[in-house]
Amino acid sequence: MGTLLRAAVEADESLSLAGGYDADNVSELDSVAPEVDLVIDFSAPASLSHVEAYVRRTHAALLSGTTGLSADDLARLRALGEVAPVIWSGNYSLGVAVLRHLAREAAASLPGWDTEIVECHHNRKADAPSGTAKMLLEAVDPAGERSVVYGRDGIVGPRPAGEIGMHSLRGGTVAGTHEVMFFGEDEEVVLTHRATSRQIFVNGAIAAAKRLLAREPGFYDFDTLMFGQL
Amino acid sequence: MGTLLRAAVEADESLSLAGGYDADNVSELDSVAPEVDLVIDFSAPASLSHVEAYVRRTHAALLSGTTGLSADDLARLRALGEVAPVIWSGNYSLGVAVLRHLAREAAASLPGWDTEIVECHHNRKADAPSGTAKMLLEAVDPAGERSVVYGRDGIVGPRPAGEIGMHSLRGGTVAGTHEVMFFGEDEEVVLTHRATSRQIFVNGAIAAAKRLLAREPGFYDFDTLMFGQL
Amino acid sequence: MGTLLRAAVEADESLSLAGGYDADNVSELDSVAPEVDLVIDFSAPASLSHVEAYVRRTHAALLSGTTGLSADDLARLRALGEVAPVIWSGNYSLGVAVLRHLAREAAASLPGWDTEIVECHHNRKADAPSGTAKMLLEAVDPAGERSVVYGRDGIVGPRPAGEIGMHSLRGGTVAGTHEVMFFGEDEEVVLTHRATSRQIFVNGAIAAAKRLLAREPGFYDFDTLMFGQL
Amino acid sequence: MGTLLRAAVEADESLSLAGGYDADNVSELDSVAPEVDLVIDFSAPASLSHVEAYVRRTHAALLSGTTGLSADDLARLRALGEVAPVIWSGNYSLGVAVLRHLAREAAASLPGWDTEIVECHHNRKADAPSGTAKMLLEAVDPAGERSVVYGRDGIVGPRPAGEIGMHSLRGGTVAGTHEVMFFGEDEEVVLTHRATSRQIFVNGAIAAAKRLLAREPGFYDFDTLMFGQL
Repeated sequence: MGTLLRAAVEADESLSLAGGYDADNVSELDSVAPEVDLVIDFSAPASLSHVEAYVRRTHAALLSGTTGLSADDLARLRALGEVAPVIWSGNYSLGVAVLRHLAREAAASLPGWDTEIVECHHNRKADAPSGTAKMLLEAVDPAGERSVVYGRDGIVGPRPAGEIGMHSLRGGTVAGTHEVMFFGEDEEVVLTHRATSRQIFVNGAIAAAKRLLAREPGFYDFDTLMFGQL
Repeated sequence: MGTLLRAAVEADESLSLAGGYDADNVSELDSVAPEVDLVIDFSAPASLSHVEAYVRRTHAALLSGTTGLSADDLARLRALGEVAPVIWSGNYSLGVAVLRHLAREAAASLPGWDTEIVECHHNRKADAPSGTAKMLLEAVDPAGERSVVYGRDGIVGPRPAGEIGMHSLRGGTVAGTHEVMFFGEDEEVVLTHRATSRQIFVNGAIAAAKRLLAREPGFYDFDTLMFGQL
Repeated sequence: MGTLLRAAVEADESLSLAGGYDADNVSELDSVAPEVDLVIDFSAPASLSHVEAYVRRTHAALLSGTTGLSADDLARLRALGEVAPVIWSGNYSLGVAVLRHLAREAAASLPGWDTEIVECHHNRKADAPSGTAKMLLEAVDPAGERSVVYGRDGIVGPRPAGEIGMHSLRGGTVAGTHEVMFFGEDEEVVLTHRATSRQIFVNGAIAAAKRLLAREPGFYDFDTLMFGQL
Repeated sequence: MGTLLRAAVEADESLSLAGGYDADNVSELDSVAPEVDLVIDFSAPASLSHVEAYVRRTHAALLSGTTGLSADDLARLRALGEVAPVIWSGNYSLGVAVLRHLAREAAASLPGWDTEIVECHHNRKADAPSGTAKMLLEAVDPAGERSVVYGRDGIVGPRPAGEIGMHSLRGGTVAGTHEVMFFGEDEEVVLTHRATSRQIFVNGAIAAAKRLLAREPGFYDFDTLMFGQL
């Protein structure tokens, strides 16, 4: 992601790159690194205290896509919103954000329809379902009240009302496909997102960063920042 | 539709069927037909004056799915909303209504993404694109400002920004499939509705009729009646 | 199926209906029922001995779609091929037969590609995967050597080479959708069959029956009868 | 393609790269260039005479993916098969070759079913339909007897039997999707190929090159070389 982000910033006429950091020099953020308008952080939880110190010192906006953060880490990011505009998301794809929003609306509009979520990723992915599929599950069942099955085999009986099926396909080099399916009587609605590279996360992060620069201090949500009252 | 609607009303415990009319006896609506709570009309423009007279006489709610009405006819239905709850729609499918709504939101959220609409119907359908595809076009381009192409053949050059492609597939006995596709950089969002029978129009009409019965006089829109502040 | 088959025979100019049987009068087949050219049997295993007696007596061609037959029952049908043209199949859909054939060829042509099978049926179906999905599994893995998973949940690790994923979606009133997916490096091939009614089994049975009438005594396979050297 | 091919050869343990040529040094092939086992040529028609001279001098196998060749150029390549194993193809994707083969078989097995071909490519592609879509058209209508429509708009009337619909979608950065659809009564069969990068052409060319090295002199066809009696 570092390489892709660097290229995207350099290719964007409205942005200029002041520098970068990795595990070796991240401690320079504490007191030495010069002031900039915006920090983009896709590093590791271990960098958090340095990034935090930098934002408190310079009031630079912070866009974070670092994964593996604890609830406590996220609370610290949220608190940083008191001194600067801050955003964190686990998935900066515009298309995924739209899918998430549409899935939420469709689920609310089609009560009683049967819901199934299908995702497909490359054959080296070790976990299932994908993090994005879990976000979609939350979108269609915000209260977390419905039962979820991760496969069906044997005499399973008629489908229980309210059940959600989650299906994880794995194959080849697929960058990521997600489908949210709603089945009614003699009709169905299917919402699909298909990604063909990690570039989509870079594009969404850069777009969000530009919006963040125009905002007051605060902790922002990707969907709201990008789509407002969606 | 008459047969399907009759069966649906009879199968619904909260409704009871008072009677029906066709071209032969529709004039009885003017003065003879007994009072009911609701009229469901999927007939022909020629019946309108009789239906109108009945609603003005009895203040029965009116759900109309009659197609081929003129702008003047629709204005008369709208005026009927002064004395009774009235709704008219060219497509009472719940799923299509949701698709239309989601397509509108996706188009607004993904400016600059390339949009293509694909529909598929049985091989006896004489017109293209389908009426539903035209409604979807209006949903993604409410101002009607964008250019539309109905096929591409030869050296057409790079795709103009803002263009919308409409593609009508015809084959077999397909009841109706609609796809609205949004293409960004390395990602795409596709919204699909698939119908397998005309039953879906009946189900949506009955669901709308029940809601209409609980409303004050007025002219209602299917999407708003069913989904409110969607 | 009886009603649908009866209607199909009556609608076909090249066929005429001599009569029908059910549990009440099937024993008439043994000695009383008049001679016909062809028997279509979609009944129950309990009828087998009567049907068998009839074919041995009249040498009528027999098309059987009865399910739930034991291996011994199937051997008896096969033996009937000595006196009349006989065919049995669990699925008379032309499209499914073609899909099965294409899946077999694709699997043989794309060794090393990851294979996933996805099927979707209505929410009242009690068993998973569908019988057709099991036939497709056999088509892509005729030797039955590959491991099959029926869902993925948790840290499952990278996809083992040769594994086949089977995914059973359930929802609404779906008549039956089957997908066989092959994933290679940066490309995929997907074969899909979609049914919208049980009529497809009737159509395929009638088409097979006509071909059977022109054949010598023998036990025939649906795929071979319809597609020959496919 | 040159860069991708070079990387693929270097990454393959069973191959070693002897060198490359472009417009500047292609004339060295005539008499100076050292002997190798195989030449891979994705250059331009102008290089043909030099490549031809090299193969006649060294009897090296030749895999050509050069496009824009005239019928006369192709005849010269074919004649080269007298002295060395030679193959030319306009599309070295394994998946596309399989799709082409399966489409041919499906069309032959489903006479009377309605056929539609849908392809989707990025928004900078200037021509429509794609070359691969044209190959698929030839696969489903080898005799070129059927009428083809490239879009439907207005009152087009019922679909003529035998007509083939070709639909070219354009959007975003799509590398290439092709669908061949067959519609029967209440069922459909859809064959889909989806590419996510040009790497697929490299992989197929390298796979074909290895097979070519084991062959006698002759002019080979990609499908036959890869899939034999498919």
